[in-house]
Amino acid sequence: MNEREKNMVEITQKAAAEMLLQHDSILVLMHKSPDGDTIGCGYALCLALRACGKQAQPVCSDEVPAQYNYFTDSVPTQTFTPQFIVSVDVADTQLLGDTLSVYRDKIDLCIDHHGSNKRFARYGIIEAAAPACAQMLTGIIREMGVPIQGAMADALFTGLTTDTGCFRYASVTAETYRTAAYLVEQGAQNGTINRLMFETKSKAKVELEKLAMASLQYFCDEQIALICITTEMMQAAGAVDNDTESIPSLPRQIEGVKVAVTVKQKGEQDFRISLRTTEEVDASQICAQLGGGGHKAAAGCSYHGTLEETIEKMVALSVKALESSV
Amino acid sequence: MNEREKNMVEITQKAAAEMLLQHDSILVLMHKSPDGDTIGCGYALCLALRACGKQAQPVCSDEVPAQYNYFTDSVPTQTFTPQFIVSVDVADTQLLGDTLSVYRDKIDLCIDHHGSNKRFARYGIIEAAAPACAQMLTGIIREMGVPIQGAMADALFTGLTTDTGCFRYASVTAETYRTAAYLVEQGAQNGTINRLMFETKSKAKVELEKLAMASLQYFCDEQIALICITTEMMQAAGAVDNDTESIPSLPRQIEGVKVAVTVKQKGEQDFRISLRTTEEVDASQICAQLGGGGHKAAAGCSYHGTLEETIEKMVALSVKALESSV
Repeated sequence: MNEREKNMVEITQKAAAEMLLQHDSILVLMHKSPDGDTIGCGYALCLALRACGKQAQPVCSDEVPAQYNYFTDSVPTQTFTPQFIVSVDVADTQLLGDTLSVYRDKIDLCIDHHGSNKRFARYGIIEAAAPACAQMLTGIIREMGVPIQGAMADALFTGLTTDTGCFRYASVTAETYRTAAYLVEQGAQNGTINRLMFETKSKAKVELEKLAMASLQYFCDEQIALICITTEMMQAAGAVDNDTESIPSLPRQIEGVKVAVTVKQKGEQDFRISLRTTEEVDASQICAQLGGGGHKAAAGCSYHGTLEETIEKMVALSVKALESSV
Repeated sequence: MNEREKNMVEITQKAAAEMLLQHDSILVLMHKSPDGDTIGCGYALCLALRACGKQAQPVCSDEVPAQYNYFTDSVPTQTFTPQFIVSVDVADTQLLGDTLSVYRDKIDLCIDHHGSNKRFARYGIIEAAAPACAQMLTGIIREMGVPIQGAMADALFTGLTTDTGCFRYASVTAETYRTAAYLVEQGAQNGTINRLMFETKSKAKVELEKLAMASLQYFCDEQIALICITTEMMQAAGAVDNDTESIPSLPRQIEGVKVAVTVKQKGEQDFRISLRTTEEVDASQICAQLGGGGHKAAAGCSYHGTLEETIEKMVALSVKALESSV
């Protein structure tokens, strides 16, 4: 723990809102490999700040996928020297990625919902019980007194629905459904957004899912299900990286499976592993052993080796976790 | 339209609640091939009536699947001569099935959310804007003044989440999310229920999905996607009828597809067709041409002929609908 970690001051949603209102030019950092929650929060917060007459810009080390353009198009780029730096949905400065790593020690306010948050900012509001950062941010923007509407409502709804698997996960609370009701009343296009995020698969993605499911293997009395996505499969399906996002949830859905492992090839001998677990098993604990992390039910890590070695390693760690869960 | 159809008196949620409270022994009819909404409503209404000291029994022509036993187990069977007969989520008396057809002309109150409802009861409350009958019934039980809790909350939440695809469909409104928030506050186990209903697939179902997706065909510039479930596939996967329920949503998810057709073999030359459409195309209108029906975005019908003839017929009707939608 460095000095900064020790010193992060925990504040309330109201204090965070007041702090944001006190500055005129604000940079909002999103995490690398951005998902709907970090993007939704980054753009919604900037829209809220701009509505108060401030300069504000969301930034990310990686490109923001075009599928979010129904709200990102409403935020034309602004260039300025920021007075105040905020991160949204970022658990660790390592997740800022290369381009944003210059801000690592300069973050004034961290808004996050990961229990594993590294407390790297001067001030922070960390709500591990919130299933999406967008749930927290909706509260903060309301505290700012900014009317939520149009693209801002769509951005927040996108964060809320994508990080909860469309309100499906066990982490969803009454407050989550109430936040959704509020955002829909403010004009969030829930039907369109849910269809775009959850019901629209490219033909390439459909092909990739078929190939990935064909690789399904069971281990440990069928308590572990493992699927692979190899470079060869990606090419055969004509798929892009974004097409793989929802695949880790497929083996988790199989009855009796407690640990679902998705092994994705990143290079000749480099693999990215996504773990999904039922409540008996802590996915983040398994992934931490390989330098990864995440949530209890969903975590990730990387492994260097052949595909067979990667599978062997992940199965061994999963078996160990299953045994200690009994 | 017969005399009864003409005479059905439309009433409010409050009037329906008062009417239910005026009777001591109530039979609640569910539709055949029961889904989460009709079952959730049937059992929740009986629990509410029993909480008022009344005799009440949910009944169905088909067996209620065991997957719902987390709330159905709380409703032990009562036998009595009913004073008052209610139907829940039943659009047409034909959907009562053989066993319940004796009640066809004897239904006192119809609680339903299908716009196509045939208005067969003495009194009726039909809210076509409600995405689930359970949303209406939550309001009616609250009007009855019965505390919603335990199995009743779980039953209502089950109806709400299953008929909205876990709050995903475009039919979901702010009121739906607010109802979900209320039910979760009253103790509905949203995480467990959503996992059971949406995230749990038997290994047989996983196999069946793989086979069904392998049968995928595109027509009409890939605007129509069609998959088949044959008796042979069912046997190869070791699947049961219940395993096929969510399959019609698979071809709908493919980008650019406006009409998704699932053809399921029921007998040598008998097929059941499920249609899912985007907003440009009215699924119920296509199915009505073969004597079927349903909602605008999801409908069904039957066809007698070979598999090839069935496919040909459905593609022809879909092409015609697509052409007239332009």
